[in-house]
Amino acid sequence: MFSLIKQLLIGKPLKSDMLGEQKLNKKKALAILSSDALSSVAYGPEQMLIVLITVSAAAFWYSIPIACAVLFLLTALILSYRQIIFAYPHGGGAYIVSKENLGINPGLLAGGSLLVDYILTVAVSVSAGTDAITSAFPALHDHNVSIAVTFIIFLTILNLRGVTESASVLAYPVYLFVFALFLLIGVGIFNILTGAAPTDLHTPVGTPVAGISLFLLLRAFASGSSALTGIEAISNAIPNFKDPAPSNAAKTLTAMGILLALLFSGIVFLAYYYGIVPQAEATVVSLIAEETFGRNFLYYFVQGTTALILILAANTGYSAFPLLAVNLAKDKFIPRMFTVRGDRLGYSNGILILGFASILLIVAFNGHTEQLIPLYAVGVFIPFTLSQSGMIVKWIREKPKDWQTKLFINAMGALISLTVTLVFFLTKFTQVWPVLVFLPAIIIMFHRIKKHYDAVVDELRVIPGKPPVAIKGNVVIIPVAGITKVVEHSIDYARSLSADQIIAVYIPFEREDEQKLEEKWAQWHPDIRLVTLFSPYRSITLPLNRFVDSVERKAKEENYQVTVIIPQFIPKKGWHNFLHNQSGFLIRTILLYRKNVIVTTVPYHLKK
Amino acid sequence: MFSLIKQLLIGKPLKSDMLGEQKLNKKKALAILSSDALSSVAYGPEQMLIVLITVSAAAFWYSIPIACAVLFLLTALILSYRQIIFAYPHGGGAYIVSKENLGINPGLLAGGSLLVDYILTVAVSVSAGTDAITSAFPALHDHNVSIAVTFIIFLTILNLRGVTESASVLAYPVYLFVFALFLLIGVGIFNILTGAAPTDLHTPVGTPVAGISLFLLLRAFASGSSALTGIEAISNAIPNFKDPAPSNAAKTLTAMGILLALLFSGIVFLAYYYGIVPQAEATVVSLIAEETFGRNFLYYFVQGTTALILILAANTGYSAFPLLAVNLAKDKFIPRMFTVRGDRLGYSNGILILGFASILLIVAFNGHTEQLIPLYAVGVFIPFTLSQSGMIVKWIREKPKDWQTKLFINAMGALISLTVTLVFFLTKFTQVWPVLVFLPAIIIMFHRIKKHYDAVVDELRVIPGKPPVAIKGNVVIIPVAGITKVVEHSIDYARSLSADQIIAVYIPFEREDEQKLEEKWAQWHPDIRLVTLFSPYRSITLPLNRFVDSVERKAKEENYQVTVIIPQFIPKKGWHNFLHNQSGFLIRTILLYRKNVIVTTVPYHLKK
Repeated sequence: MFSLIKQLLIGKPLKSDMLGEQKLNKKKALAILSSDALSSVAYGPEQMLIVLITVSAAAFWYSIPIACAVLFLLTALILSYRQIIFAYPHGGGAYIVSKENLGINPGLLAGGSLLVDYILTVAVSVSAGTDAITSAFPALHDHNVSIAVTFIIFLTILNLRGVTESASVLAYPVYLFVFALFLLIGVGIFNILTGAAPTDLHTPVGTPVAGISLFLLLRAFASGSSALTGIEAISNAIPNFKDPAPSNAAKTLTAMGILLALLFSGIVFLAYYYGIVPQAEATVVSLIAEETFGRNFLYYFVQGTTALILILAANTGYSAFPLLAVNLAKDKFIPRMFTVRGDRLGYSNGILILGFASILLIVAFNGHTEQLIPLYAVGVFIPFTLSQSGMIVKWIREKPKDWQTKLFINAMGALISLTVTLVFFLTKFTQVWPVLVFLPAIIIMFHRIKKHYDAVVDELRVIPGKPPVAIKGNVVIIPVAGITKVVEHSIDYARSLSADQIIAVYIPFEREDEQKLEEKWAQWHPDIRLVTLFSPYRSITLPLNRFVDSVERKAKEENYQVTVIIPQFIPKKGWHNFLHNQSGFLIRTILLYRKNVIVTTVPYHLKK
Repeated sequence: MFSLIKQLLIGKPLKSDMLGEQKLNKKKALAILSSDALSSVAYGPEQMLIVLITVSAAAFWYSIPIACAVLFLLTALILSYRQIIFAYPHGGGAYIVSKENLGINPGLLAGGSLLVDYILTVAVSVSAGTDAITSAFPALHDHNVSIAVTFIIFLTILNLRGVTESASVLAYPVYLFVFALFLLIGVGIFNILTGAAPTDLHTPVGTPVAGISLFLLLRAFASGSSALTGIEAISNAIPNFKDPAPSNAAKTLTAMGILLALLFSGIVFLAYYYGIVPQAEATVVSLIAEETFGRNFLYYFVQGTTALILILAANTGYSAFPLLAVNLAKDKFIPRMFTVRGDRLGYSNGILILGFASILLIVAFNGHTEQLIPLYAVGVFIPFTLSQSGMIVKWIREKPKDWQTKLFINAMGALISLTVTLVFFLTKFTQVWPVLVFLPAIIIMFHRIKKHYDAVVDELRVIPGKPPVAIKGNVVIIPVAGITKVVEHSIDYARSLSADQIIAVYIPFEREDEQKLEEKWAQWHPDIRLVTLFSPYRSITLPLNRFVDSVERKAKEENYQVTVIIPQFIPKKGWHNFLHNQSGFLIRTILLYRKNVIVTTVPYHLKK
């Protein structure tokens, strides 16, 4: 039943050796891994203008030099990540790069930061996309949360089906979005060149502006840098690429960087040229589209694809989170279950937990996850800074060919990333302080988990030539509730084990029951010792525990092993379980967890 | 931890032999078992007037003859239940009386009807009481549901603590309510006798009224009869009384009947004399109290005690439901767990399920359980009719002394109860139709449960002189995940059992793992056969199932028993369980439920 529904949703299980076929070619990889980064241009330029407008609209010309700085940072990051891809062909996320070059704690800082960040990616992107849809159809506004949750469930199922299949579905909207924005930018520039656009809407570059400060410009830069969130996804996902994975990944990264740069510059330039002022009700992209096309089909096409890509940006989280989790789990910092491949060869535990956590976030914030955006940006730039610092260390340590050039690129990237991070902390502390709490908490958790795993390995290791103390004999205890076939079968079984001693234990709540069973027993199995433990408080476990303890103590002295055999009948239909007390299950759990005895369950399958 | 919280809430466990001390004396029994019946006078007269006002206020004089009819029915019911108490001294609820005299299905109809009805009692009474409180304090209105749920949780805990202790708490409000109403009725009649009350507010008895019909009068009578809900509680609860239980119960029942008759008559008379017209915002009792006292302390005293007794009326459900459940469970129509006494000797499963179900109802109806009142009344009058019909059959069959008189009383009661039931169906079908669905469903469920229990007893019975086929030998299968101390211990144990064959099973997902373990195993335990089952679909249970099947088939031919020994390490701290896959648990469950093998768990307790 359950497995049938599962198959319907995610498809038939795949064999392990079909793994190769699930891998991504460049075109699909670009679609699946870049929706987060590309969708950022929908809000990055706007964030920048929102900071500049606090001085005056005359300051808008600063968006051009700031955009150049962002492009510079983008170039540095792309170049740096290309180097990382080749240096770490098995997946060079911030976690691995930081861990190998800076040490374990910086690595965990990067890893923990990204792990939380991918959850935020999913929650923030899906809510933003849902907002875009319900702005277009206000009747749906009250159902924001349920729509967002439905989208997340849909994405989760798609990803459980497998990487390639989800790529096929997701490729179209991403390419449509890129096409729509290129059309917008192309028509806009064509209008400007042919003189069809008004030329008096903007102040010339270089106009002096009163009240501008370096602090403000840095803040605008940091805000604009939020357009770069998501570019690390490709370097994390190298194992998902078809061979030769590193070179395919590097090419995809470059293509994404170029697309991102073109779209970002185009939007910033048109916004500046048209003198767009950010508004609460309409996004900057929407205003540009309206200025360029008017409110016609093309306008709605741009808006629609923007909404769609925001929702799909969440998919980046689905690609990156499980892979990062595998890396952390292999190093034993998070539970081992994250390394297990599901029926369709995806890391289904990671996918499920990501979906679950982001649904929790959306429900907890009632769909208003905008408040999480600064947190989200900081969570990206911390690992950016760490991984590029790691590369600096690597170049200095290894000194390969052209290491000075490489060092320079990474140093620039690290410096700018660090600046962006610090500016976020300085200017938006009230929104980003939670990272100072949860990152240390996560790192402590990582260490505790690793400590436990290490201890287990240590304890379980078999030391050659040092066999354990051999078991000399067996004492079997059978708790009985009456004289039935189940008990008969259990006694029969105990005898077949050639146990040295068999003790039946009966725990009556009433004195008359005690006497009655003792008499019957004496007739039925006079050769098997029956111990009755009268329980005035009507507890089965307490007297049984005490009895097992006393038997165990004596048995231990002579290296005898105590086994408790629990006769249990198994009903034929599920609902029948409600009709029988589950004391067998309870006894088993308590004995296994608290005592050093072996617990055997003798099933008796009811036929009706 | 859990048991500490439990002790704090419900007190220390009591020994079984302290049962006698938990029993009720007459004064406490009256308080604990009559709050439902007595609280009905708060709405019974009002229901009657609401029907009459549909003709005209002039028709109000009919409330006097109708009240006489209700009093007649009350007398018949009380006399009948006194006879039942003496005829069935071990608890003579409608279930037992109907079952013994009319047959099993009428008994189940009565029992199922009451079982659902007690849940409705709790939900309806608590919501009504909560409404009364939040009417007085409108600020609390938005929290209606949470307040009602809190009251139910409070009542549940009280009843888990034990009958006597809750009686002590509950006695005061009941007696205060009776005192308040007697004060109200006494002062009202004193005013009338001394001429202090206006005499022109009512039409004289016998005034002709246009548009009155027998149908309407029957409907008013049925509505007024809702004041009689709850009087069956005492006859169900005879085992809760101190010895001599039947005579104590009969005396308590008579006392309750007299109190109920006095309060009901007083309220109806004052309502008639003052010409009270039912209003949406104020209850009839409230209007009478205002007319009698004005809005002073005494008015609030009447209102306060009324609110309180409505909430406590729910307690009748808590006394009656578990006892009825015990009777049904002893006859195997509902799960056996209802017969188990909890720490404090109450039937805690019944108490908990009643609390849980009524909370569900309140949440599902968002606190507006008034809609359930007709359903509730029908649920009472169906068993009334059945139990009195049962008594008719009993008198005819047994023909004791004065059987004609007894027969007459019960026949009258049965006839009136049946009439009330039919009138409810005729006049309020849209509200009471659900009983036609859920009562048959419940009765079918009862039968299916009994069938299962009977089949189990039959199957488990040991037939003397016909021992089962003896076990000739043992085959042990040990699923292993690697070479560890847990596995070592398991092998050691299997050897100590002198098993005829030990097979270790390894299920690798990768070919390289397979080879690696095989090599290691050959060095470690060359004497123990290792079977590797490569699993391309990464499932542990499927290949293991198949393997166990094939071993089992062969073993069965020679009467060998197959045992699967599962090595399982038990972490020291609870949260560590998340760090290990629970495949041991999964394997055990699947094998026990699907296969005819014995499952043994060898625990290895981690020390760190």
